[in-house]
Amino acid sequence: MKIYFAGSIRGGRNDAETYSKIINHLKKYGQVLTEHVGSKELTDSGEPIPDEDVYTRDMALLKGADVLVAEVSTPSLGVGYEIAKAEEWGKSILCLYKKLENGKKLSTIMEGNKDLIVKEYVNLDEAFQYIDDFFS
Amino acid sequence: MKIYFAGSIRGGRNDAETYSKIINHLKKYGQVLTEHVGSKELTDSGEPIPDEDVYTRDMALLKGADVLVAEVSTPSLGVGYEIAKAEEWGKSILCLYKKLENGKKLSTIMEGNKDLIVKEYVNLDEAFQYIDDFFS
Repeated sequence: MKIYFAGSIRGGRNDAETYSKIINHLKKYGQVLTEHVGSKELTDSGEPIPDEDVYTRDMALLKGADVLVAEVSTPSLGVGYEIAKAEEWGKSILCLYKKLENGKKLSTIMEGNKDLIVKEYVNLDEAFQYIDDFFS
Repeated sequence: MKIYFAGSIRGGRNDAETYSKIINHLKKYGQVLTEHVGSKELTDSGEPIPDEDVYTRDMALLKGADVLVAEVSTPSLGVGYEIAKAEEWGKSILCLYKKLENGKKLSTIMEGNKDLIVKEYVNLDEAFQYIDDFFS
């Protein structure tokens, strides 16, 4: 099982530790193709290689993946783009987000798209449970 | 000419006034299908109709549009998603963003995708010039 994990990079790294823990849990189910997304060393400057190379690499990885798991608590253009691409390419998709603060709501485009599995979690154990359900 | 304008809603409304001014400029070139995105009344709660209805309406509007113009300064899952859908459906796409503060960089997925026209502007006159070039 090849798993593409998507999380915010230049949109902000507030949830990087969460990404790392989710990636560790995903490894129970297969190979995570984008483990660097959870790295503490990765800042919101992005990777030290040309953007075009990152785009080309990421699209090839996503195309070759079996599933997309996206953590969508931090708004991100790239993650939104990857979700649509994964849909276009017929991948199974799981979107997870932490209960947002101050009554904020998740993107209408995510919540309103009934082809996506979108789950709100209050703690990581709950997120892991949604992942277990997704792969079962 | 049918123009789909995309900007952040639940991702944050900091740029709502900019959206409104860009939409006004776009009207020189055709019908803007999503004029509400620039409305002062629209908050980050979104529209007072079910998310599923918004998603279905917006996807139909985007599919029927000739071009997508996206203001991408504020990271947004929905805008990223719409850019990928517009690409899938063969639309011409123009992405505009204000020179970001604190050395922040635009999404790698946007900058690295050479099929998109992505332009950074320092003031609205420059943004309008990019729009004029796009439609000329």
